[in-house]
Amino acid sequence: MEKPLPKRKELRLEDYVQGVRANNRAMLARAITLVESNAAKHLQLAQDVLTAIMPYTGQSIRIGVSGVPGAGKSTFIEALGTMLCERGHRVAVLAIDPTSSLSRGSILGDKTRMERLSKHPGAYIRPSPTGGTLGGVARKTRESLMLCEAAGYDVIIVETVGVGQSEITVRSMVDCFVVLILTGAGDELQGMKKGIMEMVDILLINKADGKNKPLAEQARVELERILHLLPAVTEGWEPKVKTISALEESGITECWQLIQQFHQHMKTTNLLEQRRQEQADSWLRSLIEEQLLAGFYDNERVKSELPELKEKVLNGKLSPTKAALSLHEIYINQP
Amino acid sequence: MEKPLPKRKELRLEDYVQGVRANNRAMLARAITLVESNAAKHLQLAQDVLTAIMPYTGQSIRIGVSGVPGAGKSTFIEALGTMLCERGHRVAVLAIDPTSSLSRGSILGDKTRMERLSKHPGAYIRPSPTGGTLGGVARKTRESLMLCEAAGYDVIIVETVGVGQSEITVRSMVDCFVVLILTGAGDELQGMKKGIMEMVDILLINKADGKNKPLAEQARVELERILHLLPAVTEGWEPKVKTISALEESGITECWQLIQQFHQHMKTTNLLEQRRQEQADSWLRSLIEEQLLAGFYDNERVKSELPELKEKVLNGKLSPTKAALSLHEIYINQP
Repeated sequence: MEKPLPKRKELRLEDYVQGVRANNRAMLARAITLVESNAAKHLQLAQDVLTAIMPYTGQSIRIGVSGVPGAGKSTFIEALGTMLCERGHRVAVLAIDPTSSLSRGSILGDKTRMERLSKHPGAYIRPSPTGGTLGGVARKTRESLMLCEAAGYDVIIVETVGVGQSEITVRSMVDCFVVLILTGAGDELQGMKKGIMEMVDILLINKADGKNKPLAEQARVELERILHLLPAVTEGWEPKVKTISALEESGITECWQLIQQFHQHMKTTNLLEQRRQEQADSWLRSLIEEQLLAGFYDNERVKSELPELKEKVLNGKLSPTKAALSLHEIYINQP
Repeated sequence: MEKPLPKRKELRLEDYVQGVRANNRAMLARAITLVESNAAKHLQLAQDVLTAIMPYTGQSIRIGVSGVPGAGKSTFIEALGTMLCERGHRVAVLAIDPTSSLSRGSILGDKTRMERLSKHPGAYIRPSPTGGTLGGVARKTRESLMLCEAAGYDVIIVETVGVGQSEITVRSMVDCFVVLILTGAGDELQGMKKGIMEMVDILLINKADGKNKPLAEQARVELERILHLLPAVTEGWEPKVKTISALEESGITECWQLIQQFHQHMKTTNLLEQRRQEQADSWLRSLIEEQLLAGFYDNERVKSELPELKEKVLNGKLSPTKAALSLHEIYINQP
């Protein structure tokens, strides 16, 4: 049994770091809450915690799972996660849902969706952070991922609802990107997002059970052909297509084998190290960009001048370059 | 005959505006040289010229042409352009070649590539601007496009070499995006860039002549299937695939019919207006972003601190958020 935490006590840096490292789940939850906080007073401590745990991060297999609503993502994650826990792995499930701040309690926040997995002592399930921009949600999830790694989780699954830019965001923080689709008369990709076929490492055709089976098999052949023609996201790895049934739990073991095979490929070719360095670099760049843009668009004078200038640009009365130069002038030369 | 320009005379705003509006080609060329200038002293005048001509822009059909090297872009543009000039259109050909500043005189600068078209009085061919970032090259091409429109060109073709992000850039400034490919044993897409299939409005399979013809036809069927599955870039317009032979000038008339059909669709659905407004808006945003980032990365203190902080991030010794916060602090609080 884990020690209960003193409820009201202000935790210090060492409390967080030791708690996380000891895989005290309540402590991990509080550390994640700390990095998710939007309060300015928590920022410094949160970043100190992250810097302290950084040497203990990076050892997990990071898997992104995406797919249209109804494709069976939760059922799949529950089946895969439970199987892995039973084999002695420790599995953390995170989520990116940029809509959750609007709906206040999205489907991804609902632990009962993965009831069996959430009860397993080897699993940790955390709903999507809420509030703020996708950039903010992404930062929080990346940092939670690091905390989970420091707590010893060796498989991290990041789920996305597939809205807006969320797939690109998840792709940018995982090693292996898995997309679930449903079969249906050759229109498998109709509801899919632009570019998703060129982000995918493993494509799973779900609900390949009962009378769906032949259709799913047909779709697999078709999709393999398409993926063969499109450029692959991971050098030397032609995206794999598999039919599964998350509900009947068929194909889950093979799917894990594929993920391991992929991971092995990434490790032996040094692509894992390379991809993660590129991810860290572009993360740093996007954080810098976010700060600069936020500073600009939150500026009072910019806020008061922008609408009129933009209006003129859209109505063809002012060149965009001139408008941008004026706004920059206003921003730089303020008292 | 056009009036010869006084060689050394400093031109004023009215000279440029009247010259361009009168379709004085030498004057159009000088106006483009002005907006292409990197000299700070030309910036104000260039932007004044653009603002003055803005009411006369927006009336052309803007066509982007992309494709791998060797796909026959120049031959195609020459064939299409010449046909249009002979029908009384006025055709301007611009280019975006982010590599031209490296190679100093890229293939796109070579007017002799389109010898027949370049001699036609209804055509104006301008090589890619050189120097600077892709963002800079893009700005110059957009502004040249506006100048050409103000000079009365009613078809503007923007060509790209297909390197780096140049297709996305061209896509963001045209109405209709045409991609040329070559056939060859089902591997049509192998050399293609990520996402290009989801940017295209009209896909042309070139060199469909001689013994290539049946292969090209086979590829057309295949590509139509793929495009049917992928999400379309233009609402209500399923991308069209056509086989042509730019060399034998077959299929060029039909291609122009497709472009007109596309343009008609855009106009009747109000998508043209909408797309152009979105393009202007995102252009404004990217100009603002460029200025902010340039200011940041050119800053002396940032330049001296960034490498070490980045190194720490890449080696997992510092969280990216902490690094970004420190850099921003340094940038904002400088003396």
